[in-house]
Amino acid sequence: MPKLPLLDMPFRNLRNPRPPYDWLDPDALERIHLASLDILENVGVDFLDDEALDIWQQAGAKVDRKARHVWLDRGLVLAALSSAPSSFRWRARHPAHDVVIGGDGIAFSPCGGMVYVADLDRGRRIGSSTDYANLLKLSQACHALHFAAWEQVTAQDVPVNVRHLHRVRAGLTLTDKVVMEGAHGRVITADTLAMMQLVYGALDGDPVTGDVINVNSPLRYDERMLGGLITYARAGQVTFITPFILAGAMSPVTMAAALAQQNAEVLAGVALTQLVRPGAPVIYGGFTTNIDLRNGSPAFGTPEGAWAALVGGQLARRYGLPYRGSGGLTGSKAADAQATYESLWSLWPAVLAHTNLIMHAAGWMDGGLTVSFEKFVIDLENLAMFRHFLEGFAVDEPSLALAAIAEVGPGGHHLGTSHTQERYRDAFYATSLSDRLGYETWALAGGEDAATRANRIWKEMLAHYEQPPLDASIAEALDDYVARRERELSGARLYE
Amino acid sequence: MPKLPLLDMPFRNLRNPRPPYDWLDPDALERIHLASLDILENVGVDFLDDEALDIWQQAGAKVDRKARHVWLDRGLVLAALSSAPSSFRWRARHPAHDVVIGGDGIAFSPCGGMVYVADLDRGRRIGSSTDYANLLKLSQACHALHFAAWEQVTAQDVPVNVRHLHRVRAGLTLTDKVVMEGAHGRVITADTLAMMQLVYGALDGDPVTGDVINVNSPLRYDERMLGGLITYARAGQVTFITPFILAGAMSPVTMAAALAQQNAEVLAGVALTQLVRPGAPVIYGGFTTNIDLRNGSPAFGTPEGAWAALVGGQLARRYGLPYRGSGGLTGSKAADAQATYESLWSLWPAVLAHTNLIMHAAGWMDGGLTVSFEKFVIDLENLAMFRHFLEGFAVDEPSLALAAIAEVGPGGHHLGTSHTQERYRDAFYATSLSDRLGYETWALAGGEDAATRANRIWKEMLAHYEQPPLDASIAEALDDYVARRERELSGARLYE
Repeated sequence: MPKLPLLDMPFRNLRNPRPPYDWLDPDALERIHLASLDILENVGVDFLDDEALDIWQQAGAKVDRKARHVWLDRGLVLAALSSAPSSFRWRARHPAHDVVIGGDGIAFSPCGGMVYVADLDRGRRIGSSTDYANLLKLSQACHALHFAAWEQVTAQDVPVNVRHLHRVRAGLTLTDKVVMEGAHGRVITADTLAMMQLVYGALDGDPVTGDVINVNSPLRYDERMLGGLITYARAGQVTFITPFILAGAMSPVTMAAALAQQNAEVLAGVALTQLVRPGAPVIYGGFTTNIDLRNGSPAFGTPEGAWAALVGGQLARRYGLPYRGSGGLTGSKAADAQATYESLWSLWPAVLAHTNLIMHAAGWMDGGLTVSFEKFVIDLENLAMFRHFLEGFAVDEPSLALAAIAEVGPGGHHLGTSHTQERYRDAFYATSLSDRLGYETWALAGGEDAATRANRIWKEMLAHYEQPPLDASIAEALDDYVARRERELSGARLYE
Repeated sequence: MPKLPLLDMPFRNLRNPRPPYDWLDPDALERIHLASLDILENVGVDFLDDEALDIWQQAGAKVDRKARHVWLDRGLVLAALSSAPSSFRWRARHPAHDVVIGGDGIAFSPCGGMVYVADLDRGRRIGSSTDYANLLKLSQACHALHFAAWEQVTAQDVPVNVRHLHRVRAGLTLTDKVVMEGAHGRVITADTLAMMQLVYGALDGDPVTGDVINVNSPLRYDERMLGGLITYARAGQVTFITPFILAGAMSPVTMAAALAQQNAEVLAGVALTQLVRPGAPVIYGGFTTNIDLRNGSPAFGTPEGAWAALVGGQLARRYGLPYRGSGGLTGSKAADAQATYESLWSLWPAVLAHTNLIMHAAGWMDGGLTVSFEKFVIDLENLAMFRHFLEGFAVDEPSLALAAIAEVGPGGHHLGTSHTQERYRDAFYATSLSDRLGYETWALAGGEDAATRANRIWKEMLAHYEQPPLDASIAEALDDYVARRERELSGARLYE
C-alpha cells in the first residue's frame, strides 16, 4: 500500500502568496478602530488581578482599585502597542519544526480544550490520557499541522491539579513540534516554564511556549488569565489575546459593535503584555461569532463569523500584530455535512484573512466540547488541500506546454505524452480521504461514507506514528520534575 | 412551526461587494492569454459542422474543409469578441425573477444533466419525470436559487426524442424563473425557441433561454453543440461557452497549459457567436479541474479546480465577458463530509472569482451522474449563507452601539438590552439545517445527522411549493405544441 499522502508531506512553513481578502473599506475599519478607543477610554475594562492593576497604575492609567476597573487612555494603549513584534519565530524541540508567526505566514494547530472524545467505534466519552496521547501522535505524524501539542482533549483520568504536568510532559516527549500550554494562572504557567527550561535551557531567546488569553467578554480579564498573561509575557513567551464573543450575548447584536468591542478588549490585553515586557511576542486573537437567536446557542461557521474573521485580520494588520483565528468550528455532533460546511465556513475566511495562527483546525466539534477522531482526519484533508492551494502553480514556458498541445492536437488525449509522463506523479494534489471511483465500484466495496473511511485512516496514521528521539537525561529530568510537583501539589485546589 | 428560512427569502439579484480574488498577477495572466492566441493561430480548432465552417470562411479564417479544421488569427478573434456584451438581463416568466448576468452580479443555478436521483428513502435510481418535477419545484420554492428550470435530472420515462418538449413545458409551467434548455443541436433549440415564443411573444429583446456549449476538449466543437450555438446565438439567446477540461487527460497536466487551452477554446466559441450575431449574449465558461492520477477518475473540488475557477474569472474580465463557473462539484456518492468539502472547494472559489453564473450549485453529486435530494438541501443552505454573507454589515453609529456597550458594562450581558431587542429577529443568518443544540438534547431526539434532517427539509419544501399562475391559453398552446411535435418526431432519432 502506498504511504498515505497525509503522512507523506515534509514539514513546511506556509505563506499566503496573495493579498488578504479585506472585507471592510479603510473608512469603515477606522470607525471600528475609533469606537474601540472610545470604549477603552469611556467604559474601561475590569482587570481582576492586583498585579495587573499595579501595572496599569504605574503606567499612568486611571484605576479604581476597589472596582478593579481601569480606564485606558488611547495614547497610553497605542504607545504600549508599538513595542509588540510584528512577527517572531516560535521554537520547537526539533529546529526544523520551528514556526514563523506573522507576515504572510499561515500555521495550523489542532483543536484544544475539548472535554469529550468521539469515534465511530465507541461513540462519545470523557477524554482520557490515552486519547490525549493518540491525538498528540496524530498531530505529530501529519505535517498539515504545524503544532502538535496543545490540550486536544482534557485527560480526565489524571487529577486536575497535576494534569498540566502530565500534559506538558506528553507534549515534550511524544512530539517535537511546538508545545502550547494553557496560560491558566500563575502555577500552571510557572510549571510549564520550568519544564520548558529542562528541555530548552534558559528561555532568553525565541519563545518556546504560550497560549490563548481569553477575555471574559464583555470587557473583563479574570485573575486566572491575567496570572497567565503576566507570567508568560514576563518570560518572553507567546500570548494570543482572544475575546470569546458571541454577538447578541457578550456584545451587542450588531457585528460592528461586536468587532469594536473585540478590538478594545484585544488592545487592552496586548498593551498589558507590552507593559509587562516590551517586545514580548503577542498575537491579536479573534473568536467572534453569534448566538443562534432561536435558542441562544452559540453558532459557529456562520456568515457573521466569516465577517469577523476577515475584519479581525484587517485590524491586526492595522496595528502590525500577528493574527490568530480558528479553522474548524462547528456545532455539529457528528462528522457529517454540517460539521464540514461549518468548518469550511471558518477555514476559508481564516485563510483569506491571512490568519497567521489558525487554531482549532482539526477535530473540533460539538461547539468545542468534543474532539472527533474522524473529523480530525476530514479536517487534516482540508488543511492539506490548503497547503497545496497556497503553493500556487507555475506559468512559464514548460508549464504552458504549447508543444504538447500541438502534438496532441484537436480531439486527442494527453495521458501518454512525454510532457504528462514526466510530471504526473506530483502533478496534482493527492487525496487521502476522497473517493472518486464509480458508484458501482464504491457500492460493491461497502458504500462507505467519508467518516467511515476517516475511521480507517486515523488508525493507519497511529500505526505509522514514530516517537521522536529525546535525550534520556532530559526525559528523566521531566519525570523527576513531574514526580516532585505531584507531591507538592497533592491536595492543592488547582483548576485548569 | 415557523416557516423554514430557506422558504422565507425574497428573490433578489446578488452582487459581490468586494473586489474579485485574483490568483495570478497581471504578467502571468498575460502569458496565458498570449499562449491561448498562439494555440488558436498555430494549432487551431476543429469545427465539425458545415455551417460553422462557412461562417469562419466568410470571416476570413483559414479553413481546411476536409479536416473540418480552422486556424484562428488573433486579430479576427479579438475583433469578433469586442461586440459581446459585458452584461445583460435574462428574462424570466415572472419579471421580478429576471436575472442580471455580468459585472459584480452572482446568480446560482441548480445541478443539470444528471442521470440518476438519490434520496435516503429509496437510494439511487434512474431519474424520472416525477423526480424532475420535484427538483423544479424545490428550485422554484427556494430563492437561494436564481434559476429553477434546467435539466436537474433526465426524465428517462419519457422517450429521448421528445424529452426536451416535456422538459421545457415543465419548466415553463411549474416555475416562473428563467428556463434554461440544452443547446443540443438544431432541432431541440428550435423547439425551445418556438415554445418560448408561445410564452414571451417575439424574441427580439432580452434573452429568455440559453445553455452551456461544451467543447470536446482538446480543441474540438462537435456538430450538436455547434448547431445549438448557432441557433441560440442567431436568436439572441444565451450561450455559455464551456470547455470540459480534466487536466492530464483533455489537456496537459500543468494548470497553466490547461488554462491556456481553456481560454483558446472559449475565445473560439465566443468569437463564433459574435460572427453569427454581433451583440449576442455569451458567457465565458470554465469547468477545468484535474484527473485523479491514481485511477484516472475526474477529481472535483480540488485545489487545482480552485485555481482554475479563480483564473477563469480573471480571463473573463480581461475580455469584458460575463463568467460562468460551478458551485457544488463532488465525486462523492453520499451526502457526506466529502460531498460537502468538495462542494465548498468549488463554491468558495466561484464566489471569490466573481463568477456571474454559478451553475451546478445544488444537488450535484457522484461526478455529475446523480442528483441527491439531501445534498440539494445542504447546498441550498450554503447558497443562502453566501447570499447573507455578500450583503455585508453596516458600520455606523447605531450599529457601533457605544451606548449599549456602556450600558451593559464589563461582565454583563446583552440579551435584554433595547439595542438587542429592537434588532434580534433579523440580526443574524437563520439556518434551516444546522443543529446547534447540546449533545444530550440532540442525541435524545435521535442523533440525526445533517443528511437525515435534509431529508425532512426537502419534503417540507415540496409540501410548501405553489405553482405559479400561467395564462390558460398559453398553457394550452404549449400542450398543443408538445402534442404536435410528439407526432412529428415520432420515430425520429434525436439524442439529447
